[in-house]
Amino acid sequence: MRLLILNPNMTAAMTERMAEVASRVVAPDTELLTATAPRGFPYISSRAEAQVAGALVLEMIAERMGTVDAVVVAAYGDPGLRAARELFDIPVVGMAEASMLTACMLGERFSLVTFTANLAPWYLESVHAAGLGSRLASIRIPHESFRSVLDVRNELRAALLAEAGRAVKDDQADVVILGGAPLAGLALEVDDAPAVLVDPISAAVKQAEALARVAPRGAGAGSFARPPAKPNQGLPDALGAWIAREAGS
Amino acid sequence: MRLLILNPNMTAAMTERMAEVASRVVAPDTELLTATAPRGFPYISSRAEAQVAGALVLEMIAERMGTVDAVVVAAYGDPGLRAARELFDIPVVGMAEASMLTACMLGERFSLVTFTANLAPWYLESVHAAGLGSRLASIRIPHESFRSVLDVRNELRAALLAEAGRAVKDDQADVVILGGAPLAGLALEVDDAPAVLVDPISAAVKQAEALARVAPRGAGAGSFARPPAKPNQGLPDALGAWIAREAGS
Amino acid sequence: MRLLILNPNMTAAMTERMAEVASRVVAPDTELLTATAPRGFPYISSRAEAQVAGALVLEMIAERMGTVDAVVVAAYGDPGLRAARELFDIPVVGMAEASMLTACMLGERFSLVTFTANLAPWYLESVHAAGLGSRLASIRIPHESFRSVLDVRNELRAALLAEAGRAVKDDQADVVILGGAPLAGLALEVDDAPAVLVDPISAAVKQAEALARVAPRGAGAGSFARPPAKPNQGLPDALGAWIAREAGS
Amino acid sequence: MRLLILNPNMTAAMTERMAEVASRVVAPDTELLTATAPRGFPYISSRAEAQVAGALVLEMIAERMGTVDAVVVAAYGDPGLRAARELFDIPVVGMAEASMLTACMLGERFSLVTFTANLAPWYLESVHAAGLGSRLASIRIPHESFRSVLDVRNELRAALLAEAGRAVKDDQADVVILGGAPLAGLALEVDDAPAVLVDPISAAVKQAEALARVAPRGAGAGSFARPPAKPNQGLPDALGAWIAREAGS
Amino acid sequence: MRLLILNPNMTAAMTERMAEVASRVVAPDTELLTATAPRGFPYISSRAEAQVAGALVLEMIAERMGTVDAVVVAAYGDPGLRAARELFDIPVVGMAEASMLTACMLGERFSLVTFTANLAPWYLESVHAAGLGSRLASIRIPHESFRSVLDVRNELRAALLAEAGRAVKDDQADVVILGGAPLAGLALEVDDAPAVLVDPISAAVKQAEALARVAPRGAGAGSFARPPAKPNQGLPDALGAWIAREAGS
Amino acid sequence: MRLLILNPNMTAAMTERMAEVASRVVAPDTELLTATAPRGFPYISSRAEAQVAGALVLEMIAERMGTVDAVVVAAYGDPGLRAARELFDIPVVGMAEASMLTACMLGERFSLVTFTANLAPWYLESVHAAGLGSRLASIRIPHESFRSVLDVRNELRAALLAEAGRAVKDDQADVVILGGAPLAGLALEVDDAPAVLVDPISAAVKQAEALARVAPRGAGAGSFARPPAKPNQGLPDALGAWIAREAGS
Repeated sequence: MRLLILNPNMTAAMTERMAEVASRVVAPDTELLTATAPRGFPYISSRAEAQVAGALVLEMIAERMGTVDAVVVAAYGDPGLRAARELFDIPVVGMAEASMLTACMLGERFSLVTFTANLAPWYLESVHAAGLGSRLASIRIPHESFRSVLDVRNELRAALLAEAGRAVKDDQADVVILGGAPLAGLALEVDDAPAVLVDPISAAVKQAEALARVAPRGAGAGSFARPPAKPNQGLPDALGAWIAREAGS
Repeated sequence: MRLLILNPNMTAAMTERMAEVASRVVAPDTELLTATAPRGFPYISSRAEAQVAGALVLEMIAERMGTVDAVVVAAYGDPGLRAARELFDIPVVGMAEASMLTACMLGERFSLVTFTANLAPWYLESVHAAGLGSRLASIRIPHESFRSVLDVRNELRAALLAEAGRAVKDDQADVVILGGAPLAGLALEVDDAPAVLVDPISAAVKQAEALARVAPRGAGAGSFARPPAKPNQGLPDALGAWIAREAGS
Repeated sequence: MRLLILNPNMTAAMTERMAEVASRVVAPDTELLTATAPRGFPYISSRAEAQVAGALVLEMIAERMGTVDAVVVAAYGDPGLRAARELFDIPVVGMAEASMLTACMLGERFSLVTFTANLAPWYLESVHAAGLGSRLASIRIPHESFRSVLDVRNELRAALLAEAGRAVKDDQADVVILGGAPLAGLALEVDDAPAVLVDPISAAVKQAEALARVAPRGAGAGSFARPPAKPNQGLPDALGAWIAREAGS
Repeated sequence: MRLLILNPNMTAAMTERMAEVASRVVAPDTELLTATAPRGFPYISSRAEAQVAGALVLEMIAERMGTVDAVVVAAYGDPGLRAARELFDIPVVGMAEASMLTACMLGERFSLVTFTANLAPWYLESVHAAGLGSRLASIRIPHESFRSVLDVRNELRAALLAEAGRAVKDDQADVVILGGAPLAGLALEVDDAPAVLVDPISAAVKQAEALARVAPRGAGAGSFARPPAKPNQGLPDALGAWIAREAGS
Repeated sequence: MRLLILNPNMTAAMTERMAEVASRVVAPDTELLTATAPRGFPYISSRAEAQVAGALVLEMIAERMGTVDAVVVAAYGDPGLRAARELFDIPVVGMAEASMLTACMLGERFSLVTFTANLAPWYLESVHAAGLGSRLASIRIPHESFRSVLDVRNELRAALLAEAGRAVKDDQADVVILGGAPLAGLALEVDDAPAVLVDPISAAVKQAEALARVAPRGAGAGSFARPPAKPNQGLPDALGAWIAREAGS
Repeated sequence: MRLLILNPNMTAAMTERMAEVASRVVAPDTELLTATAPRGFPYISSRAEAQVAGALVLEMIAERMGTVDAVVVAAYGDPGLRAARELFDIPVVGMAEASMLTACMLGERFSLVTFTANLAPWYLESVHAAGLGSRLASIRIPHESFRSVLDVRNELRAALLAEAGRAVKDDQADVVILGGAPLAGLALEVDDAPAVLVDPISAAVKQAEALARVAPRGAGAGSFARPPAKPNQGLPDALGAWIAREAGS
């Protein structure tokens, strides 16, 4: 299968790192493809930025339909996830959703540890959008500051793991997700973690592989049936054409 | 106060009708302004269309900041509502949210009656996004088809009111929202309704007036504090500039 | 419209202050009337006192039907609110409910800051009665004591605002309600608040104005249809007569 | 123990019947006392009537403090229950609450079958006030009309049992409460019921006996600690005096 | 009635103590019987141990059917409770469930205080299995260690009561359950408790007495109807025979 | 990886069929092993049978520790799942849980279609145990009877698919799980399904593969840390020894 790692941020270095992490866990017969947002933001970190980036996700998938078998939206808050599922007939997976669902099989309650407080409310909305509020133990963020979002995983490594330990000890978490694209792979590299750790990009690519076998045409019934063809104006070409075209035509 | 009715659809006739209905209920000292989407869709009716339209809402408000005191997002599913609240320091109100909150003061349980099944799942997500799932009695849609979305309020009037009656009788609703921009004003014009009816555009403009008095700077603390200035690329001019600029600068 | 501010406490000074605050926010065409409980308690602050005061609310409205267009029950825990909605065919609004619903448009999560711990459980029940438990961040009360309930807003001003700041910083609130009739107006008078503040009496009168336009006959269907005429004995005159009389007769 | 069956309705025949049913299930060492409301309504059946009757419950208990060891509020919607628990230092039990909690040990989901639609919303609020919404399967009411509330148990017997059967078959109930004071005892007298039936007055007296052993001083901590002495005016003598007096004095 | 106190642990001394506590609260006409697990664990304290012990509960009841009128499963996490209710046609009560339901009549929110952290997650699952999550204030465990589980009630008495006080003061609990079989009776013996305390074995035997009057045949409809006869192999004799036999045969 | 398909039923033909279905979807580097219950029931279908079978699951895994890398508990209601996760340090996956979590990535709401009403309550408890009640649209069962549980997938094929269609049309489901071991593989073989279908055994093996990469040591922190060594008596040899032995020893 051809699996697209779609980064709705403009930072190509982050896309590459996520692809490298993904390559460690994919099945032998999975081919990895990547895409990085051609416009928008270096790193989205607010509801407003996610609103804009979610529209970009639709545009980037529309441009690649027919050349990929499944998509991972590779930004932790899953911008545009449900809209993409409705519009396209292949599996679409989000890092936040995939890591939460994976965590649900590793304990009763999970915590999220991430690196900047700005992101917490957006992440919390992902939890509630998934209906998993009763499984969340806590969202924890180190107080330490950092210099570079690209290197935050090294700068804050000790602080992040300390928060993971507190999530288990103080918040009754069984599992801890290390969330945010810049932390990709960190969970896989810790030998003596104080918690069972989940790496979102790994979880997402494995879930995409699972869906590609279990439901290769993705979501496509009920409220996720592809909407009827709709005239539109001023949209990016591929997306506008896809929306204007009847399914199957 | 200057109150903007912002229609994220391209259909100007619908904007005008909503403004006319609004003019019947506003306070003497409220001035109504309108805006209609310059691109996008004639009438949004899917999650994907709302993802795109929500980004348009941000763009349209950015272009008008400084000239309006409050905004009503005049499409029933409230596209872009939370993102707009985060980004701008004036009250922003959505028709779905405002009509649900208003209904909560007219009974314990409300139903939503609208005219096309496509919209139901999107509307249901609005209910849950507001945390009001326990107050919802039902979403009901007439089986009858109609010719024109602009005239659906007349074509389906009897059928819509019959569903409102069933919501009270069969679903234990106390109040019924007639949802969807094309039904604007209908709730105000029925004399012998089988239920207490709520008109979304009326509810939204009155809520915007209330916020303009109670919290004239809108949402602005906690997770709705305006995000830090963020570099960006390829965004519409006013929106890109707004996001790139520090608050207060 | 004629809007009645009904104080179910016996303290007329509090009624006057609330009316003064209300007068700052009402629309030009709203006329304010007031009523103060003729018996009961100087200031209700327990479930038992609210049970008694709620019956007083019904009695006081019954005595004024025909002379007012909407009622604000001006005690923060909304005693008698649902019973009044059921019995009378005009909008009836409670300060707790109105301030919570208003807060829901100013962020995702609200906190309540008030001045005495006795009231917290009763207020918490108001939150759950409204089905808004998932939107509540915290209830906070300063540890400081005060001398006079009538002057508590000045005595504890700094402490109350400090708690509002902690609600945002520590409890992830986006909005803070300053609850309890003795704090009326305080939220409107703070220039540099650490949170978006909601003033309950202001919120309530604006919501009453909104309902008077959107649903001038108030709640009146489903479980809020006026009950059939019921014989009764030993009730205050106006209330007994109202309950004994068939609607429309 | 001296157990008071307190009927907040004025119909003494109903009090007597409930006492007779109670006498069949009490332990040998339980003494039954009764009280019937001296004013108010023949049979309360609305929120407004319950608001008034709840205040009567406080008054009636205040008059009997020192002569009873526990109280059953013998009207199905439990008027004044929480207020009474707060004010008095003996166990106070409600028929609706007691029958629901009892039902929770006889299956996962319970239904309520009663005889008049007016009462359903009030009963539903009792379920939610108890936090037991997830255990409720349905509320069912026969369509048949009846002549006398005192004889409704005989007139509608077949229809009520048919609804109990449907609750199990169609609504996935495991247990059925036959709710409403006029049905007292019916559940105990059916040999071939299509469901496990719960009789509210029986459940309530057994729960009162249980509390009298497990916590003979009733609720009395946290938010149910007796409120501080409070001056008051115009209240019935015993109640006014009780509220004005400090606990222990 | 013949009431069986069934201890799914192997420690007979604990069975005896629970029977002694039970004897203080039962009605004059209740006869107490006991049973102690013949195999398994001295004291179960994990999900895995409860899974095994729950099967033992079924086996122990099957051996005694016809000789007892009701059963109390006397281990705090209620192992095998729902399975036993489904299989046998007499009331079956669990200590955790019974103490929570009893606590619900002594306040709005209850806390659980117990003596070892291992048990907390299992107890929390009991709360959620009962659908009572919204009534739980906290689970609290003293930090102090102890030498003997049989004497923990004396060793940690002060620490346990201190936690009960904190539950009321810091967690807004109204009632506190002292959970875990080794604490049996402690709640009854404290004169100056900082909270209303519930003793689980007392609560359970009183609830079993209540059910024996209200529903002497126990759960038996809907999803708790006895399953059809099922062939089986390798099960303990009495249990295997009971499951293989059609109800009524 | 070595993946064990553990059938807690005694019917080997069912184990074989599930292994055959699993072999169609596993990755090239996954080796499938199987185990069938040596005692118990031909096909478990009640809470009581699941209580017994859950203990068998623990016993069967204990006997195979060291020879497998992950386990799928191959009975739809997931007997013993949480206990196994707590006790063993490899991933353990249940068919019900895995299919629900998979369904959550294929739409907002899922339905379960299965073949016999006995199983519905047990399955419903699986949904709530997973905290996914808000995602469930319905549980549907054909009215038609069948002769053989081994052939039910062919006998009821048309009826099952009709119910799947109704789940989408009438219950607003987006996805449908065909639940129950005897239906294994059916979802994969339908070309023109009226819904997106999920096959539980396929979902479970793919989830086990995912966990084996993301968290190869399974659940192991917080409340799922392996319990301390515990003496025991009368347990099956391997299980007794495992429980009696300290982790790491």
